[in-house]
Amino acid sequence: MLRPASFAAARWIEPGRDARAIHGPVTATQIAEAGGAPLDVQAMLDWARGTGGPALRAMTFHERAKMLKALAGYIASRKEELYALNPLTGATRRDGAVDIEGGIGTMMVMAGKGRREMPDGLVYIDGEPEILSKSGGFVGQHICVPMQGVAVHINAFNFPVWGMLEKLAPTLLAGMPAIVKPATQTCYLTEACFRMIIESGLVPEGAVQLVIGSLGDMLDRLGAQDVVSFTGSADTALMLRANPALMRNSVRFHSEQDSLNATILGPDAVPGTGEFDAFLKEAANEITTKAGQKCTAIRRIIVPQALLGEVRDALMGRLDGLTIGDPAAEGVRMGALASAEQKADVLARIAALSGETKRLTGDPASPALTGAGPEGAFLAPTLLQCDDPDAARAVHEIEAFGPVSTLMPYRDLAHASQLANRGGGSLVASLVTADPSVARAVALDSAAWHGRLYIVGGANAKEATGHGAPMPHMVHGGPGRAGGGEELGGIRGVLHYMQRTAVQGSPDVIAAITGQWMPGATEIEGPAHPFQRTFREIAIGETLHTKAREVTLEDIEHFAHFTGDTFYAHMDEEAAKANPFFPGRVAHGYLLLSFAAGLFVQPDPGPVLANTGLNGLSFQKPVSPGDSIAVRLVCARKTQRTDTYGEVAWNVTLTNQNGEQVAQYELLTMVSYDR
Amino acid sequence: MLRPASFAAARWIEPGRDARAIHGPVTATQIAEAGGAPLDVQAMLDWARGTGGPALRAMTFHERAKMLKALAGYIASRKEELYALNPLTGATRRDGAVDIEGGIGTMMVMAGKGRREMPDGLVYIDGEPEILSKSGGFVGQHICVPMQGVAVHINAFNFPVWGMLEKLAPTLLAGMPAIVKPATQTCYLTEACFRMIIESGLVPEGAVQLVIGSLGDMLDRLGAQDVVSFTGSADTALMLRANPALMRNSVRFHSEQDSLNATILGPDAVPGTGEFDAFLKEAANEITTKAGQKCTAIRRIIVPQALLGEVRDALMGRLDGLTIGDPAAEGVRMGALASAEQKADVLARIAALSGETKRLTGDPASPALTGAGPEGAFLAPTLLQCDDPDAARAVHEIEAFGPVSTLMPYRDLAHASQLANRGGGSLVASLVTADPSVARAVALDSAAWHGRLYIVGGANAKEATGHGAPMPHMVHGGPGRAGGGEELGGIRGVLHYMQRTAVQGSPDVIAAITGQWMPGATEIEGPAHPFQRTFREIAIGETLHTKAREVTLEDIEHFAHFTGDTFYAHMDEEAAKANPFFPGRVAHGYLLLSFAAGLFVQPDPGPVLANTGLNGLSFQKPVSPGDSIAVRLVCARKTQRTDTYGEVAWNVTLTNQNGEQVAQYELLTMVSYDR
Repeated sequence: MLRPASFAAARWIEPGRDARAIHGPVTATQIAEAGGAPLDVQAMLDWARGTGGPALRAMTFHERAKMLKALAGYIASRKEELYALNPLTGATRRDGAVDIEGGIGTMMVMAGKGRREMPDGLVYIDGEPEILSKSGGFVGQHICVPMQGVAVHINAFNFPVWGMLEKLAPTLLAGMPAIVKPATQTCYLTEACFRMIIESGLVPEGAVQLVIGSLGDMLDRLGAQDVVSFTGSADTALMLRANPALMRNSVRFHSEQDSLNATILGPDAVPGTGEFDAFLKEAANEITTKAGQKCTAIRRIIVPQALLGEVRDALMGRLDGLTIGDPAAEGVRMGALASAEQKADVLARIAALSGETKRLTGDPASPALTGAGPEGAFLAPTLLQCDDPDAARAVHEIEAFGPVSTLMPYRDLAHASQLANRGGGSLVASLVTADPSVARAVALDSAAWHGRLYIVGGANAKEATGHGAPMPHMVHGGPGRAGGGEELGGIRGVLHYMQRTAVQGSPDVIAAITGQWMPGATEIEGPAHPFQRTFREIAIGETLHTKAREVTLEDIEHFAHFTGDTFYAHMDEEAAKANPFFPGRVAHGYLLLSFAAGLFVQPDPGPVLANTGLNGLSFQKPVSPGDSIAVRLVCARKTQRTDTYGEVAWNVTLTNQNGEQVAQYELLTMVSYDR
Repeated sequence: MLRPASFAAARWIEPGRDARAIHGPVTATQIAEAGGAPLDVQAMLDWARGTGGPALRAMTFHERAKMLKALAGYIASRKEELYALNPLTGATRRDGAVDIEGGIGTMMVMAGKGRREMPDGLVYIDGEPEILSKSGGFVGQHICVPMQGVAVHINAFNFPVWGMLEKLAPTLLAGMPAIVKPATQTCYLTEACFRMIIESGLVPEGAVQLVIGSLGDMLDRLGAQDVVSFTGSADTALMLRANPALMRNSVRFHSEQDSLNATILGPDAVPGTGEFDAFLKEAANEITTKAGQKCTAIRRIIVPQALLGEVRDALMGRLDGLTIGDPAAEGVRMGALASAEQKADVLARIAALSGETKRLTGDPASPALTGAGPEGAFLAPTLLQCDDPDAARAVHEIEAFGPVSTLMPYRDLAHASQLANRGGGSLVASLVTADPSVARAVALDSAAWHGRLYIVGGANAKEATGHGAPMPHMVHGGPGRAGGGEELGGIRGVLHYMQRTAVQGSPDVIAAITGQWMPGATEIEGPAHPFQRTFREIAIGETLHTKAREVTLEDIEHFAHFTGDTFYAHMDEEAAKANPFFPGRVAHGYLLLSFAAGLFVQPDPGPVLANTGLNGLSFQKPVSPGDSIAVRLVCARKTQRTDTYGEVAWNVTLTNQNGEQVAQYELLTMVSYDR
């Protein structure tokens, strides 16, 4: 008997007297008991806010990212323990991979993005500075900092591992502690993974806690700095959303609800094309993976009127031979639903759809089973057909959260988008087409209704990531029926656990807060040429002013013939004068860049190893023969990349003999950490 | 008698039988009647969704931005009509400038940002593409498209013009129609400005409507594609937020609530410093402007314990001589509150604060008046003092929405931030200091609690934009008590009226949807060298492949001596080999850029006028003597800038003799629109 425990304020709390019995969906016997012990909810909140939050906020984004990477690696090293529990949930090993490897992979991707796309500091910089006064002495910069409360994660039963990890990764990366509340039906698998997190010793005290069973009155105690992230049904979301404390305190509530996701077969994707085959494969897969218990699963299959029969026959053929039964048994492709209650609920919803649909497949309640008996929560894959989807309402509104989908015809592409949008907001809509103009038309008509648009052709179907798979790089969530929330999407998902604040102040104030130099901030004179300073030594703001160099007509001629760039603006005084931007012949922009490097480079071996690139180069004023240029080089930004070197970004400006700025850019270099 | 009308489904609706009498706050006599005519709410929604939305969505972002610029100009040309009504609200001309010029200016800034920061197309591109498969045949790109419903704007009484324009500008720029509902007390001024919008003829049918009086059951009829943006009190927000239709349909609800904003006097800002004077000026100004009826006004003045007495005396001195009375009269610096009800409400709140504060100024209800009698809604500026702000609750929670502020002492900087955060979330907190390290400490402790941090010193106080002034460039809104919403912040504010959608597909699909070429998308062979094609002619995807050019050791030596860039990696085989990034001597990056230009530039005069800059240059692989490079140049992006030219961005890649990519960048050019 499994006895998953809560983890509250640093203590494991075993199931109590009022524990709930959990029955396995395969055998219908009790496999676990859970919850039923009173939790000190306020102590949990205090521990998170008072211990976990400060500990996480003391770490930089890179330190948190490294922690996540190590954590994902640790869980991966023990993943077979999770696979061992997985069949108890009704899921096959393949289903389990989506959950277990999917969760680990998501944490890995978020860790990588944290290293690459966030600074190694405490403050995330959101967007460009805004100059708010004429002299530039007062500027604005948006920053994001971790919220100072706790994130309460309320997860669904279908992805006990992924559900926890995909929310934990952005939350911890943001610097916010979390309290995880899994759905009770599959909480033992979540608990097993959570226990690994604690046992890894990688996560600071107070950063994560686990509630098995009820949250009690935790939500009533949340305030302005707390966040609730919910995944589950629309009904539960509505109940939580209406909590008076959440509303009164404007507590962020991210809701990700299963929705009436659609797939559209493009008009070009006729039988015989790779698109047609890809469409069938995807549709069948979405019906059967996790026995259709995915918030992203395809509930509505929208196909050209003329192809309805062919799609129906081909799809039924694919579903027909499917092996259903004990998810741990060899060759079984579809396991059980999560519980007897889920099975009953899905059957009730199929019945509710029967007024608008005809059932194409056999009795859903009596599939042929391999290695399992009728006492389990098994359902046959069920394909419905709705002939008048315009008049229908239920097929666009009632979701059977199991291996169930409804086929419906469309007249033209605009009609197909209309039908997809009838779901009232969904997590994902897919389109199978080889024609980019079909993709554009559907996107313009329907992107506003779907959090994700998944578009494949025959050529890239194999490498595509799947209609139903939320990728950590891409936003997961959708408008309306899908909850109006957003998760993941790379760093976007991290910002949901941070406050964006508009900071206004002097360039020095902004630089002090962001840890990056900006134009107008103080220049520091260093003890040596900046290219002779190590990554560790060089300070933000260290500045080099070079001597000036004249740019002669001979230089321009010479550069033109040497490089082959004999553009008329450099070579022909009359033609150049006719150009609206130039007073006459001017120096090549690349000549200026090259001379600038000649002015600021220190030729000897030293800590600066290589120029790796350049950003935001802008040529602001033409340079004429006889003008001279001088360079200012300021250390603007440092990002450690490995133990031995880091990236230093330099703000570079070129000015002419009148002190006018003629060009600016950010120069990127790789610099040794130490000597 | 003013009779402001609603504008519903293209018709003006005059006040009806049940119109409400509006009394002016200066004379206490009736000045207007408003509302009381039944509106066909569903017809308004249908007109917005069915007529206004499609018309706006057919325009590009640039077309909408130009419309806003013209609209702001039109209103500016008639602004004296608005100033003529302004004193009726109780506001001085100076107060009116914040409202009227502030609103026009906000629309102008948003129009400019729309032109500069959004594409001239129908789809906004959010962030960088994500490569989702190894071969690159399946990629992700976030886009934003206009939501397909209607935005309902519910505005506060204090800024009848700015309140409308600051919400309309981002909404219309996004491509979404709006229904504006001003607070009834000052709706005649909003209506006058709204009428100008209609009379301008600049805005498409259905794009804007106006509700004077009650919204009826409009909110109950909103769905997944609609947005509600609210500015006002926390109590009203809570009532609206709880609307079952909004909750059930996940309708976006942006709330911007007046809050207990604080200002902190830095420990360095002692008497005699410019900071001390700037602090006093700002605090006094925030108490008196608009008679303190600003959602951003300073309600809590947090000063070092040791300076409490000096701040108190100096501040009372500043408030003492203030001329209060008829806002239209010469020399009056503070007018009336918006209504007798507001005056009574503020007095009640001052009373509610009396348990925790002592009043430093005289009787608030009996100011000396200039040009007005005691029947008006006048209040004296009122300064309270709270000696134990840790034990106090009311001073952090109860807002007197008038010329009222509470002085309180802090022990150390951490304590100051703690007190500021006790407001439970605010729109803005300010800090006066000359010390960037003080700014950083306060930002780290308190940025999470405030939507904006406003930090000034003595040196930049004059050019700073003011504690209480929301700038269109910066986010306006805050967590918790401030409503948890966000407005403005440049394009961020536009995205609140758009759906972000994660699009996954082939590079060709992404390119078709975004209107921009991306790596992996189809290359098009043009009829001529791309530099000989006009902005109008050149197609996205038109590609030039150059011949290859060898880079010899002589070239490198020559370039080094010519430019002065004799960095050892180019000059010294042994030293270069010791560098972890290089196999031996390598070509200068700038030499490669220069040779690349020599390969792709067409020297004759033609439509391409100038190279204006370069983005995202990355040197990916060293080029050794004897290697050769060839260039591919693809037209990636076009943005018209004036009637006569536009910016064309080219994707440039350099490959070596083995087909390996050695560098990539985006080249920016200015190109003639036509011949």
